[in-house]
Amino acid sequence: MSAGAPSRRTSVRRHADRAEYDRAKVNSILDEGFICHAACSVDGTVWMIPTAYGRDGDRLLLHGAAGNHVLKAASAGAELTVAVTFLDGLVLARSTFNHSLNYRSVIVFGTASEITDPAEKAAALERIVEHMLPGRSAEARPPTPLELTKTRVIALPLDEASAKVRAGGVGDQPEDLGLPVWAGVLPLHLAAGPVLDDDQIRPEGAPRDLPAPASLTQPGRWSRDSA
Amino acid sequence: MSAGAPSRRTSVRRHADRAEYDRAKVNSILDEGFICHAACSVDGTVWMIPTAYGRDGDRLLLHGAAGNHVLKAASAGAELTVAVTFLDGLVLARSTFNHSLNYRSVIVFGTASEITDPAEKAAALERIVEHMLPGRSAEARPPTPLELTKTRVIALPLDEASAKVRAGGVGDQPEDLGLPVWAGVLPLHLAAGPVLDDDQIRPEGAPRDLPAPASLTQPGRWSRDSA
Repeated sequence: MSAGAPSRRTSVRRHADRAEYDRAKVNSILDEGFICHAACSVDGTVWMIPTAYGRDGDRLLLHGAAGNHVLKAASAGAELTVAVTFLDGLVLARSTFNHSLNYRSVIVFGTASEITDPAEKAAALERIVEHMLPGRSAEARPPTPLELTKTRVIALPLDEASAKVRAGGVGDQPEDLGLPVWAGVLPLHLAAGPVLDDDQIRPEGAPRDLPAPASLTQPGRWSRDSA
Repeated sequence: MSAGAPSRRTSVRRHADRAEYDRAKVNSILDEGFICHAACSVDGTVWMIPTAYGRDGDRLLLHGAAGNHVLKAASAGAELTVAVTFLDGLVLARSTFNHSLNYRSVIVFGTASEITDPAEKAAALERIVEHMLPGRSAEARPPTPLELTKTRVIALPLDEASAKVRAGGVGDQPEDLGLPVWAGVLPLHLAAGPVLDDDQIRPEGAPRDLPAPASLTQPGRWSRDSA
């Protein structure tokens, strides 16, 4: 199934105007996010974990401890549901009923496969680190064979993915527009505080005055905060 | 079951040092958040929605359109799993293996009940608006009886809730501390951009110069951004 043709599950019924099946939109949301929520049903319970991820073309890459419940079940064939969501603002309408949130979200349904080949696994983990901070994997020490065995990596196809977006202003009913109630949007976004150098955090470490790496000095998916 | 005694499901096995069953910790995370991810299994598929919420003592309040898939199933007795997660920072270690995220998350398992009594329903919706922005429900027009019927509200007990937190610095292995690799933490947080007045957004509306309401001028759960 192509990303352009919604499946029964990715076909958004409520607020269909907010639905986008376009793969470029799905990818742009996935590429901006840092964490997803991944869920699957095991023995009648829906287990859910917030976790880091990466994207490799048409696949979402997830990793975690080898014993992680959700990743283990997904490797054994349990179907996964994964969401990535941004909160973009509070929508403050004239009526409480029309209060809303501006957001962008992606939902993916699918069956993942475990990546076990050591070279492919190392490449997938590198992709996850690169997703977190582009350029970082070349700066840090790569994983050892033992570290690779401690980590489980799975790949989830993005065939059944959809995006839902609410953006813009207040959606008040026409008859409410004359009310003496202020209405508007408070935009929200991710911001980064000042970097904490580990040599300052770690009391036993003598400062070694390493400069902040190139990966951190380039523009990121956050604003620099004045606070 | 009390919030102090973990159930089989809320007992965190991996990184047990990151687990907190304390209700005060759970509440503080829930009270700071704006959106949750709510999931339940229906006919073999795990459905998940990002949605606003509120807290009323020992209950989490969720609402949505009367026909919403997840809320409808939850009202009919399907068990819910709900997560609220904050991304607090990127943890940039000397090894790629020890890269991590600072985060705070709450997971709740439970069976919700629908709130159908009109007065109780109106109070729950008020609580959800107050959760979004304290003071706002007194400023905006309250819901009409018709608007109440269009909305489904459910309450999820917080009996089976747990928090998991990763905070602090880099967790490198001792043998990596001498590597010539910069390590540290990039703190991340929610920031608010300048408020967008609806009278400016809405082209047909003549500016009426209503001042920003009290609810918006008090300190919020965000920093004010310089951008």
